Amino acid sequence: MDDLTDLAAYAQTVARRARGASRVLATATGDQKIDWLRRVSELIRTRGPALMEANGRDIARAPEFQLNAASVDRLRLDERRLTALAEGVDAVAHLPDPIGEILDSNMRPNGLLVTRVCVPLGVIFFIYESRPSVTIDSAALCVKSGNAVILRGGKEAFDSNRALYQLLRESLDDTGLPGDAVQLVETTDRAAVGYFLRCGHDIDVAIPRGGKSLIERVTSEAQMPVIKHFDGVCHVYVDRFADLDMAEDIVVNGKCQRPGVCNATESLLVHGDVADAFLPRIGSALRERGVELRCCAKSRPLLPVSELATEADFRTEYLDLKLSIKVVDSLEDAIAHINEFGSHHTDAIVTRDSMSSDRFAQRVDSAAVHLNASTRFNDGGEYGLGAEIGISTDKFHARGPCGLRELTSYKYVVRGQGQTRD
Amino acid sequence: MDDLTDLAAYAQTVARRARGASRVLATATGDQKIDWLRRVSELIRTRGPALMEANGRDIARAPEFQLNAASVDRLRLDERRLTALAEGVDAVAHLPDPIGEILDSNMRPNGLLVTRVCVPLGVIFFIYESRPSVTIDSAALCVKSGNAVILRGGKEAFDSNRALYQLLRESLDDTGLPGDAVQLVETTDRAAVGYFLRCGHDIDVAIPRGGKSLIERVTSEAQMPVIKHFDGVCHVYVDRFADLDMAEDIVVNGKCQRPGVCNATESLLVHGDVADAFLPRIGSALRERGVELRCCAKSRPLLPVSELATEADFRTEYLDLKLSIKVVDSLEDAIAHINEFGSHHTDAIVTRDSMSSDRFAQRVDSAAVHLNASTRFNDGGEYGLGAEIGISTDKFHARGPCGLRELTSYKYVVRGQGQTRD
Repeated sequence: MDDLTDLAAYAQTVARRARGASRVLATATGDQKIDWLRRVSELIRTRGPALMEANGRDIARAPEFQLNAASVDRLRLDERRLTALAEGVDAVAHLPDPIGEILDSNMRPNGLLVTRVCVPLGVIFFIYESRPSVTIDSAALCVKSGNAVILRGGKEAFDSNRALYQLLRESLDDTGLPGDAVQLVETTDRAAVGYFLRCGHDIDVAIPRGGKSLIERVTSEAQMPVIKHFDGVCHVYVDRFADLDMAEDIVVNGKCQRPGVCNATESLLVHGDVADAFLPRIGSALRERGVELRCCAKSRPLLPVSELATEADFRTEYLDLKLSIKVVDSLEDAIAHINEFGSHHTDAIVTRDSMSSDRFAQRVDSAAVHLNASTRFNDGGEYGLGAEIGISTDKFHARGPCGLRELTSYKYVVRGQGQTRD
Repeated sequence: MDDLTDLAAYAQTVARRARGASRVLATATGDQKIDWLRRVSELIRTRGPALMEANGRDIARAPEFQLNAASVDRLRLDERRLTALAEGVDAVAHLPDPIGEILDSNMRPNGLLVTRVCVPLGVIFFIYESRPSVTIDSAALCVKSGNAVILRGGKEAFDSNRALYQLLRESLDDTGLPGDAVQLVETTDRAAVGYFLRCGHDIDVAIPRGGKSLIERVTSEAQMPVIKHFDGVCHVYVDRFADLDMAEDIVVNGKCQRPGVCNATESLLVHGDVADAFLPRIGSALRERGVELRCCAKSRPLLPVSELATEADFRTEYLDLKLSIKVVDSLEDAIAHINEFGSHHTDAIVTRDSMSSDRFAQRVDSAAVHLNASTRFNDGGEYGLGAEIGISTDKFHARGPCGLRELTSYKYVVRGQGQTRD
């Protein structure tokens, strides 16, 4: 157990150990990492009772943190969830290993073979507030991509995270990978995060996953690059050339299938030419499902039982059964509204017109643009990345779902036969 | 002319204009950008006298800035250099346009076609202290990759930069691209840089190119990501399986061909088994060329007319005819020394043994690892990138030479036929 009385020294020690482990891990073979992942999966399957006992202590403490019923449910580890967790680790084991892949190459006229080779980022500081299962998922992705990781979980899941962490460490020891490839910050003191964010020499990237205030804090304090995941103010635009049945399905799915997540639809834009035909039917479909509507002045007369939207509504990620609605005069107006009021996360168009969809795809400045598909599909699994550590709203380094590839960098390896430069 | 009395407002105005221009530029066709580049090249070729006159004013002012002869030479624009500059712009025009390229795609089982499409980063703030030609080179690369750019040149080249900037703007007007695609910071006040670095909302990336203090300042103040270019403490390691003739060529070339640049060799590591055979000959080859040697205790007896190296020597980017030399006991020691004392820029091994070169390539944690080739080859042109805006010593987003591709991001464009998520 490390000395936690001097948090600055503690953070530096942990970060330095991670750097050392990362150098070993960068050269681990794919098989070594697969062995580790299989051992993790095996231990999750066989340690159910102990894990659930630790989790029970967190559940018992939940009232101290004023967790509501939904949050307590998210915190809970039961047999079904542990099985799903082990299956997730197996799935990561099966993903292709990105490290060492030659991304591209260039044979130069002088005989130099210039190759760009995929390498790990190095050391990742991952800060999360979510379910304890994220402890396993994130460690699996980081180590599979050759990175050492420092995990900082939420205080609500402290005992669960520690129990899962013990299992990760034990698996590292069992399979010969460096133990410090995965480290858990062993204190819930908020100040500790700040000290880690100052370890720019030994931590290559910080990834915060949680509420807006966490992400803002990390962004302002971090001395290393940050992969940010801000709001998802996601739009569906129903074009005048839309198939209105399809539009209804996509809007209802985007809003109602899982309203509390970042890729849920928060705002509906409808072309004026189809407003009369579309708004009454989508209004009743949404009201049937208990969705509260906040409408612009043009759409409100077509939508009984709705409120007038404020400008703030159009910038709000409700994460709830609420939807803002606006009638626009043109495709261009829809694009301009999305670029101005949206959060550059996921925006969809429904249209049969290829000129409209091409223009929308090109001009909407978002991580994901969906043509005739629900916003809910922006997800590493749905995109075929296998698994994700988060969804980036940045443009730099990684955009959209972050899987194994987004946790890597590259180096140039140049093969010569004695070439010198003139 | 903008009001320069309120620098904060000025920076915000310039950044907001750049953001607007970037939205237009992102959808410009390849032909539009080529037309602009051709016009720029044409004007450089025809405006020689006016450009040289403006440059003459900077040259005349050089003594005020205590520029040495080499710096004054770097500042000078003559006919030969203007021709080379125009040719460089033509070369950028000929490079493949990265924007819109589908980087990869994935047909999902549910029929969604997930594509990852190359897009510009958006707005680039480029801060440089170097030659006025960089004004043209950087604008050409930024606009070709669909980005708006805000240029901040050095005070020593103020008049030259303004003259070149007028030509860039005129070319934008002539060819129908938004004029604010390229803007020059019209003041040499150092405080202005700070205000631009706070425009995180409208500037997507800052790229400082210059001395260490500039880069450190930008890194600490920037609210947006930074592509950094720190020191090049570049090594050549002569393995015990090296061809010593080749080793001599590579060391002499790396050190002497152009000592003042970041990819020049600064430190020589020699395996103990070949120290007796190699050090006396490389010592005399280097001394003939006026290179001053700073040696470890083991190498010094083999190298008359040399000084004992301090630990600081092994961390120093001399940018001069000086070389630090150390004898190592093994390949592993060489790798450990490079990872500890180097700057992760460019490091080379000379060896005939494929096990040694593979291990060196894998374990040296540098942007570029050269096997049997001079460190001097780390360069966008030599690597086949066409041109570069700088060489990144970061691992995040871009590593090594930064050409057009490194000035881009991507978005996911997902094509469906009405899919909704279960």
